[in-house]
Formats: sequence, C-alpha cells, structure tokens
Amino acid sequence: MKAARLHEYTDEMDDALSIDDVDAPQVNQADHVVVDIEGAGWCQTDNHVIEGMWEQYMPQDLPMTLGHENAGTVVAVGDGVSVVAEGDQVICHPVMTCGTCRPCRLGEDMYCENVAFPGLSTDGGFAESLLTNERAVIPLPDGVDTTDIAPHADAGITAYHAVKKAARELNPGDHAVVVGIGGLGHIGLQCLDAMSATTITAVDLKDSALDLATDLGAHHTVNPDSTDVAGEIESITDDVGAQQVLDFVGSDATTALAPDVVAAGGDHHVVGYGGHVHEPAQALVNGEFSYRGTLVGQYTELQELVALVERGDVDLRTSRYGLDEINDVAAKLEHGEIEGRAVITP
Amino acid sequence: MKAARLHEYTDEMDDALSIDDVDAPQVNQADHVVVDIEGAGWCQTDNHVIEGMWEQYMPQDLPMTLGHENAGTVVAVGDGVSVVAEGDQVICHPVMTCGTCRPCRLGEDMYCENVAFPGLSTDGGFAESLLTNERAVIPLPDGVDTTDIAPHADAGITAYHAVKKAARELNPGDHAVVVGIGGLGHIGLQCLDAMSATTITAVDLKDSALDLATDLGAHHTVNPDSTDVAGEIESITDDVGAQQVLDFVGSDATTALAPDVVAAGGDHHVVGYGGHVHEPAQALVNGEFSYRGTLVGQYTELQELVALVERGDVDLRTSRYGLDEINDVAAKLEHGEIEGRAVITP
Amino acid sequence: MKAARLHEYTDEMDDALSIDDVDAPQVNQADHVVVDIEGAGWCQTDNHVIEGMWEQYMPQDLPMTLGHENAGTVVAVGDGVSVVAEGDQVICHPVMTCGTCRPCRLGEDMYCENVAFPGLSTDGGFAESLLTNERAVIPLPDGVDTTDIAPHADAGITAYHAVKKAARELNPGDHAVVVGIGGLGHIGLQCLDAMSATTITAVDLKDSALDLATDLGAHHTVNPDSTDVAGEIESITDDVGAQQVLDFVGSDATTALAPDVVAAGGDHHVVGYGGHVHEPAQALVNGEFSYRGTLVGQYTELQELVALVERGDVDLRTSRYGLDEINDVAAKLEHGEIEGRAVITP
Amino acid sequence: MKAARLHEYTDEMDDALSIDDVDAPQVNQADHVVVDIEGAGWCQTDNHVIEGMWEQYMPQDLPMTLGHENAGTVVAVGDGVSVVAEGDQVICHPVMTCGTCRPCRLGEDMYCENVAFPGLSTDGGFAESLLTNERAVIPLPDGVDTTDIAPHADAGITAYHAVKKAARELNPGDHAVVVGIGGLGHIGLQCLDAMSATTITAVDLKDSALDLATDLGAHHTVNPDSTDVAGEIESITDDVGAQQVLDFVGSDATTALAPDVVAAGGDHHVVGYGGHVHEPAQALVNGEFSYRGTLVGQYTELQELVALVERGDVDLRTSRYGLDEINDVAAKLEHGEIEGRAVITP
Repeated sequence: MKAARLHEYTDEMDDALSIDDVDAPQVNQADHVVVDIEGAGWCQTDNHVIEGMWEQYMPQDLPMTLGHENAGTVVAVGDGVSVVAEGDQVICHPVMTCGTCRPCRLGEDMYCENVAFPGLSTDGGFAESLLTNERAVIPLPDGVDTTDIAPHADAGITAYHAVKKAARELNPGDHAVVVGIGGLGHIGLQCLDAMSATTITAVDLKDSALDLATDLGAHHTVNPDSTDVAGEIESITDDVGAQQVLDFVGSDATTALAPDVVAAGGDHHVVGYGGHVHEPAQALVNGEFSYRGTLVGQYTELQELVALVERGDVDLRTSRYGLDEINDVAAKLEHGEIEGRAVITP
Repeated sequence: MKAARLHEYTDEMDDALSIDDVDAPQVNQADHVVVDIEGAGWCQTDNHVIEGMWEQYMPQDLPMTLGHENAGTVVAVGDGVSVVAEGDQVICHPVMTCGTCRPCRLGEDMYCENVAFPGLSTDGGFAESLLTNERAVIPLPDGVDTTDIAPHADAGITAYHAVKKAARELNPGDHAVVVGIGGLGHIGLQCLDAMSATTITAVDLKDSALDLATDLGAHHTVNPDSTDVAGEIESITDDVGAQQVLDFVGSDATTALAPDVVAAGGDHHVVGYGGHVHEPAQALVNGEFSYRGTLVGQYTELQELVALVERGDVDLRTSRYGLDEINDVAAKLEHGEIEGRAVITP
Repeated sequence: MKAARLHEYTDEMDDALSIDDVDAPQVNQADHVVVDIEGAGWCQTDNHVIEGMWEQYMPQDLPMTLGHENAGTVVAVGDGVSVVAEGDQVICHPVMTCGTCRPCRLGEDMYCENVAFPGLSTDGGFAESLLTNERAVIPLPDGVDTTDIAPHADAGITAYHAVKKAARELNPGDHAVVVGIGGLGHIGLQCLDAMSATTITAVDLKDSALDLATDLGAHHTVNPDSTDVAGEIESITDDVGAQQVLDFVGSDATTALAPDVVAAGGDHHVVGYGGHVHEPAQALVNGEFSYRGTLVGQYTELQELVALVERGDVDLRTSRYGLDEINDVAAKLEHGEIEGRAVITP
Repeated sequence: MKAARLHEYTDEMDDALSIDDVDAPQVNQADHVVVDIEGAGWCQTDNHVIEGMWEQYMPQDLPMTLGHENAGTVVAVGDGVSVVAEGDQVICHPVMTCGTCRPCRLGEDMYCENVAFPGLSTDGGFAESLLTNERAVIPLPDGVDTTDIAPHADAGITAYHAVKKAARELNPGDHAVVVGIGGLGHIGLQCLDAMSATTITAVDLKDSALDLATDLGAHHTVNPDSTDVAGEIESITDDVGAQQVLDFVGSDATTALAPDVVAAGGDHHVVGYGGHVHEPAQALVNGEFSYRGTLVGQYTELQELVALVERGDVDLRTSRYGLDEINDVAAKLEHGEIEGRAVITP
C-alpha cells in the first residue's frame, strides 16, 4: 500500500516525506484492529516530528509513516476484539495502550507505561491503512463523515482536554483567553463556549482567524500586531486578568503573556509548543499562577468530544488533500497558510 | 519606638537596615489593631526586599520597616473590632484586607484588591509594635508562646498553603519531593506527613538539613552534591516520578528538575524564588506537568495551621535574636547559616 | 410604613398575612443599609414559614414581616459602609452575615455563625423598606430593573448554587434531570444549559411548564401523569441513568426517583422540600448515589448569577402584584397557579 | 473441591450454607485466572445475601458459593493474561470487569456495564479455588500473608474508598465521626488517621470496640448506650458539627444522626446498610448536608490500600476459621460477637 514516510529529519517541509510502497499491516495480536484510513489530519506536531523535535521524547525508527489523527473503516480485527467489527466506522484515539498498568486503570491513557503512538513512535495513518488496537477505537454514530471528523482524533481531543480543565475553574463573570485560532484553537474556543458561561477573548495575528473566532463565539478579539495584548486584556477584565488562558501557540511570546494576563490563582495552559517558558520564579509566586502543560487527552474525553459534535456544538473547518499533496500541506502549515485543519485522504 | 528600617535597596546584607526611633502606630480606623511584637520571623523575602526585588511588584516608599511574620499581644483596637481585645495574644496573617472585594468574599485574602502588606508595602513588624487590622489577626490558644509561633505567620502559612494543594493530589503509594529543608521546607515536610500518606523524598545541599528531614518524617534524602537527583528519584519511584514536587528554593537548578522528576500529570510547586523557570514548552506538554506558583495563603489556612500546631504535628525549629542583631541575621541567612527559622524579638 | 406580617402560623394561605403600619427601619450600626423595596419575590418558603415549618430551624418572633427575595434602592447607610451609597440600586443576598467567623472567611455566607435571615428570622422585604447590611448588598449594573431581578435574590441564587455543583460533575454526553419547572426550576434549567453541555430532561406535572422547559433549552420532557418517569429516563439515557438530578420539588415522590434514575456515582440534589427522603441505606450503597441538600448560595454566587443575567443567559418569567394582593399570591402558589415567579411591589 | 454454598435464602444463620463437593473452576477465556483461596473474609454482606437482601439488586442463581473477599495463589491463567502468572500471590478485587465499557475506561470498576461479582452474582471464594479474571487481581509484595490480607479485598477497599472521599474534604481543625468500629470501621479509622489531620470521634455500642478505636488513633469515643451522641459531638466540635461522618453501620438510628451531627456543607457517608435513611427533605436543605452512598471501590484504590498496608499504616484485626466452621461465623457476626474480621481458610 502507499504510505507517506519520513526517512530523515529535516527543516525542508516541501520535500520532507516520500510516498513509499509498503506492506499493508496485518492483525497478529488478539487486540489488533486494522483501519482503512479515510481521513488523517495534518498537525503542527507532524512538522515538529519532521524537524526531529520528538526524537528525545519518543523512540523513533526511521523510516516511519507519520499521521496520528485518524478515522476510517475497520477492515480486520483480532480474536479478542469485541468493541468493533469489520465494517464499523471509527475514530482512533492517538495511542495504543496496554489496559493493565496503573495509569490505564485510572483512565489516564496518555500515561500508559507500555504506550505505542502511531505516527510518533510506530507507523501512523498517512497511509491506506493503519494498525491500532481495540483500546484505541471509538465507533462513530451513523451519518458521521470519517474524513470530516478525523481531526478530532488529535486536534480535537487535545483542545477539548485543555478546555475541560479550564472550564472546571471558570464561573460566570470570569474571563478566558484563547491564544491562536488555528486547527486546535478554533475547536477549543467552541468547546469552551459550550461548556462554560465565560467571557472569551481570542488572540491571533491574522484578522481572518479573529473573524472566525467571532463567528464561533468569541466576545472580544485582539491582534498583537496592532494592540498591546496585556493592556487590552487588563481593560476587558477590569484589571483582574483572565482566570484561564489557553495557549494553542506555545511560543516565547505567548507564554510570556502569563504574568500580565493571568488573574491571581489562574492558569496558563501550554497546549501548543515550539518556544520556551521563561519567567522569574518570583513572577509565578507574585501572581500565584500556573503554567500547565497539556498532552492530548483520555479515550473517554474523545467520547465526550464526539458527544459535543453530535450535539452540534463544534463545527470543524477542514480542507481535503490527497496523499500526493502531503508535502505541500506541510509547507503551507509552516507558513501559516492553512485555515482550520487540513485532512489527508489516502 | 525602635524599628528596623530599610532606607535604600542594597546587596550588603550586614548593613542593610538601620534601627530608627519612630512614632508608635496609632489606631485611626474602626478596624485597626495595634500589636506589641513579641516575635517577628526573618524570611528570605526580607533579603529579597532589601535587594529591591519586590519594587516592581509592590508599591514601596522608603524608608520602610520590614517584617511580615509577626505575633504578639494586642494593645489597642478600633471601635469596630470584635474578634480581639486588648491583652489578647495573636498571630498576624501577613496582609490587611478590605473584606468587601470579590476575592475577599471568596476567602482569597492574598488577592484582595485593596491589600496592604506590612513589611512589603507598609511598615512591618521588626519594631516594638505593628499596625494591622481585624481581618488579619487570629487569637491564639492559651499556652502558646508568641515568639515561638511567629514564623508560622508567613513561613508556616506559605508552606502549608502549597502542601495543602499538593496533598489533595496525593494518594498512598504516590511520591512527593520536598526541595529545600530550611525555614519553609522543614514546616512543609511535617504538614505533608500529617496530611497525607505519601512517600517523601527530601532534597538539600546540606547534610544537616537532610538529617533534620529524616527526623521530621522524610523516607528518602538526596544531596545534589553527591547524587544525581533525577536518577535517584527515578529509582525511588520505579521510573514513574513524583506526583508532587514542593520547591522551597526556586532557583534555576531546582525548577529545572521538573521535566525529569515530576510524574505525568503532576505538579512542581514554585514556592521559593530567586531563579528562573526556563524550559521548552514541549517539555511541559510531553510530561503534562505544571509549574504552579504559590503565594502565602488564606486567613483560614493560618487557622488550619494553628490547629496542626495544637495537635503537635508541626515542630518549629527557631533561634532568637534581638532587634540590634538583625543585620547579622540577614547576612547569616544569605550565607545559608540559619537552621530552621530566626525570630527577632523587638 | 406598610408591611405584610405574619401574626400566627396557619394553613389558611388566603388570610395568612396582615398589612400593618409599622415603623420604618433605621440605620443604627456602622454596617447597616436600608433599602426601599421595589421588588420582593414570593417563594414557596414563604408558604412554609406561614405553616410554621421553619419554627424548629430558625428563631422566629411573631409578628414578623415576611419576604427574603429583595431588590430596590439604597436610602440610608451606616458610617462604615463603602460598597454602596444612597441612591444605588441593589439586589440583596438573603442573609446578613458577620464577616468574621470562619465560615464567613471561607465565603460560606449561609453557614455564618451569627447570621440573621430577614423574612425568616427578622423582618423581611414585603414592606416599603428593609433593614439589611453591607455584606448583603450587590450593586446592580445600569439598566437593570430592580423589580424584574428581585427573584434572583433567592429563587435565582438557590437554583444557581445547586446547578453549579451539578455542572462541575457533568461532561458532554452525560444527562441531567430537572424536576419541577416552576420559580426555581425554570432558572436552574437555563443556568445548567449555559454552564454545561449536558442533555437535559425536564419533569413536571403541568404540560405548560414542560412547554416552557422546551423553550428554555430542555432536550426531553416527561410528565409523570402520563409516563413512567424512571422507565423514560432509562430509555433516554441508554440504561445508564442521569449523572445529576436537580429536584426543585422535594416531595416524597420526587426524592423516591433517585434509586431508579440517578446513574452510579451521581447525585440527587434536594433543593425543594416539603416531603421526606425515605430509602433503604442499601439503595444508596448499591447505586452509589447521594442525596445532597442545598441551601440558598454564597454572595459571590449571586454575583455570578447577575453576570449570567447580564450575558442574557437567564430569562426570568415574572408577574407583579401589589402588597395588598399578597394573600392571593400565597393561595395561588399553594394551588400551583403561579407561572414563573410572583413579585410583590410594595 | 469443597465449597460453602447457599441453597435458599434464610434468616437462620447457623445453618445457612452447606459444604458441597463441586467441580473446581477451569480457565476457559483468555483473561481467566484461577486462584487457590488461602483467605476469604466473612462480611456482613454475606449475612445479607443469605437473607435475600441482594436478590433485587443482583442476578443470583442458587445454589451459589458465597465469599467476595479473597486472596491466595494463582494456579491457572488464560492465554491473554500478563499481569500475573502461576504461583503468584494475589489479592482479588471483588468484581470481574470488562475493561471496555465507559465506566471501566474511567477507572470506575464498580460501575462496569458487564460486571460479574463472585460471591454475589457468581460463585465466590468460600471454596478451595475461585474463578476470576486478570482485571481483578493485584500481585502482592513479597512477605505479605494472603490469609491476613484477604479482608482488605472488600472490607478494606470499601472502608478506604469512603475514607478517601471524606479525607479530600477535611482540613486540620475539622472533625470526623466514625460510626461502628467493626470489620470495616477499624480499617476506615486507621486510613482516615493516615490520610488526614482531622480530629476523630469513634461511636460504637461496645466499649471494647471503643477501646480498640482509641488504640488505633481515635481522639474521642462515644457510646450511645450511655451518652447522647448528638450532644456529645456538639460539645466536641464547639457547636459546629463534624464535617464528615463515616457510617459503617447504616441502621435507622445511625443515619438519623446526620441532621444533628453533620456540619453545614458536610457529608454523611452511608457505607453500612440494613436500615433506612428517613429524614424530611427540609433537614437536608437547612443543614445543607448530603447522604452519600458508597460501594466497594476501584481497582486502583485497592492498590492504594495495599500501599498503606506496606507502610504499616493499617493494622488488621483478624481471627481464622476453617470452612467447616463457616455457619458459626455467620451466626457470631449476626450477634456482634466477632472482633475485627473473621477469615475463612478453605
């Protein structure tokens, strides 16, 4: 089958992956599931994998097929699988977990002690089919388009996971700031609007992204190119600050907003990455705020997100590309030229 | 009366404060309380105030009397005061709050929108008497020595506040790391031991501090001079990491432990300060851990700490100094030569 | 001034209160506030006070002016009052609290150890003016009609308080049941819809109330007269049950729903009262559910509710009556003939 | 093999079970585990099963082997089992779960949609060996005696689960009441003492049980035969009440304590059962307290309890009986003649 594979780490996005002919995956464990991929979202993390940024955090043997945001149709299952059967449409939680370690027993899928992460540590979904396991698949309600929903498998769950933590802390009258209205941010904003009654301020460098934010429920928008973000949020929040900041960018500049923007006792959720957190410890003490890292989300949170989608609370903006266009997509995202989420249809 | 005052910011600790003759404070508001100081703890923050580190965070008019860790006997009260009367022994919560703003109504004293902070923004307790208000004073049980208990007014409440957050997240079988077994750390360790059933590892550069930690309940100790902290904690925790780290130092080196030491989903509480937090955003994401700043604590938390002291769960190590020895104390703390907590007895 | 007073406990609602001429209240403490009442909601609790149901729980000296759901204009303030001034429009939190006891310091206004409850333990707001204190009053945003907003002072805050607890436990895909779509329930339903993304089923004996529920956001409605409530909720929730039940009725019949209707680990919030909770302890064990009593709410929760109202998330259905019609209102509510909330305009 | 089986529901404890010869269980699923039973605790619930009290809550086909509190040595495992191997010593979580339903994925083992409950719905552990599955077994640390630890499999986990919920709500200075210092209560008291810094009052009708409570850490004891419980707790708590009550009895009399004993905002945990909860809804409202049912606990909570045992924080009082003495044990417990926990050694 055809698969888009990384052979060596590079900064050249427009020639990063090659379309190889590889053996299609086979079931060889009782819990294995093979899924024909009908949608595989392209994620900023794919660019970061190509650059080698994950090498120190994940075991990676190149060449490796990328793609960790997958949905499609089950075509083969192992003996022990009961949750799905051949022909079922599924969305794939990003990681394959063991189910027996303590984190798995707590529902903390991302902390599994025996985790495999297709697209980051094993072959992923930019291919005609994908090997995953029973614990990763969620059957979809009838009528859901697998290509359309694919980005929820990672962009969606990651945004949802962070928003769920933030929403627990937000009361009516409180303020939240969403930084970066791209693939993750435009989902997160809608989840936040559905799950809380907070006042939302969107921050983005592109006015088109801010227009989208307004359409999706933001009450205020700020463009750092033309406005002092901290000053504007101070004004919006009557000098109190925002109780929760969701940072879907994670650059030096966005994490540096926290001391001026986060209300006392509040959180700056680091969802996007690429830059550094760099602040005096005294700033965290004086403002009693937190930088809270966030990593994908639980299997049950993906179920909750699918429920939000069924309710009509989250509208995903996607554009579709063939497997042969994959390096164009990589390059476009690098240059900020993708609106919403790009989905590969292998 | 005599008061130890800062006239200009300096790095010379051994000559930082001068003992001045100033007017004793008077009650001139209905909620005012004047306390004759019998104990005023010396805090690392006093060194930081002297260095000018708080100038950008707090309004400060020099000369100013330092001292924010106070206990003594009430000698005058305003008309509207009912919680205490002349002659009562009290410990003073560090800040004077308004009681009417939203944070005050939520019990979040440190976030009061109209706060005054004696010793940081107004005259403090390194003096014969202190002006504070009704909302700051907690009457002490009979038989408590005001000099002995004074350090709980800030070192104690700050350690307790951080530990209370950590203890909520800790289950039996989990691990906690206490970094820095000094004035705050030796209190925090005891609170943690009393309030949870976690396995505690103490980290300090001084073996005498580690011996104290063992006496006070630590299950493991690590000296970074002789041992690789991250490797040792990996070994102690079976590669899982510590669910909660309480960092009472807050240097570049101690905050840098987090990515290697904090378990997935865990917290690194930044209590001490002086250095920087400096990590790639990706490290927070990959480990899904948080840096959580912590600032003093609530009035009701000081009540809870006094209850712990009454139970006999917290044993404070103090040494006493006269007001005229205050610059020696400042210099000794700077050089790590104070065990436990120094208390000034003006 | 005129005031509607209870002289003796009775079950005869249509003649329960008499309109007396009494002295208008005066400021005689530094924190006192006198409010000219422009709206005072009539509450099921007023009927219960008339019947003597609160005598064993509250100190009551008859005759007493009823009315605990008050809004209007400040006409006099004590020396120590800074939150409001003469001429300000305010909504009154139901209780006068001391501000110094531990519950007050925790923000738990309802647990104040020195509480006074106008309308239940002292003279209330079915009168031309009301004596309350600074800690009870919340200034209103410009343009809010004090008569319209009055019911939020008790019906609103009580519904909000229970919903806030429930919303913290609800995830997308979960189910909530709102029992009783009257004065409190129609507010609670809207708060729940604004603060969570849960599927809401409304239960009421009146089809008109169920129509209102649908208008306000309920996804399903059940009339116990024509449908087996437990069976219907089993069907709606795929045999899982509702994670949270908000019982604004509190009769024998509604509390008896819990074992069949509440999902494992869920809560049945007892907001309304009048009947009994009567179940085998084994039922609570087997279903691991809770009966959670709920009592009014915090001052800060009333602030949050006012924020919800400002956002346009809560639409209050009210009808207005003069002070002289007050016994009619009592009788009508007793017979279930009030839609939404009746407001007295003294 | 020999097994103690119930053939029909009865109130005659001294002749309730018969020792039958039955086929030993065999592995016939990939996840099956067969355990040779070395200890099987006798539980009040066994008496209740015999009386038929669980018939309406659980599917039960008589004859059925009782015993749901099991530990021993693994003698056979299915193909798919990796957590344990033949020869391993294990404690058995009471229920066999599917691992794939949403509650299982959330870690909520007791809410599994496909649960089997050996000893309540399938054959249990009062037999030479027991059929369970991989998800139910926890390997024990070296040196643990399986007979001694067996009662933790149900008495322990149930007490721990309730205490964990309570401990989360308790601050230093708060009060907890433990009602019933028997099999569960004497474990719960020790867990509470290890996991919080609360003041503990033990309530029991037997002075010997109260002496045990004092040995295990209770600060106060109350015997309802000689003292008015509510009045005594009012006095101990300075009229505030106990923030958390753990009711390991669950009789009419013990659940009726709540309105007088539970502090505002507190919880009465219903762990034991047999009687009814019967209170006016108004009592729950006025005191804003909850009755919280509690059912066994999670697999991960049993891990946490094993960690507490390893720390030496919980000392279990047991007495051993042969399988042939089982009806004597049933009768003795019915008459309150068992101290601590009886363990059957088949």
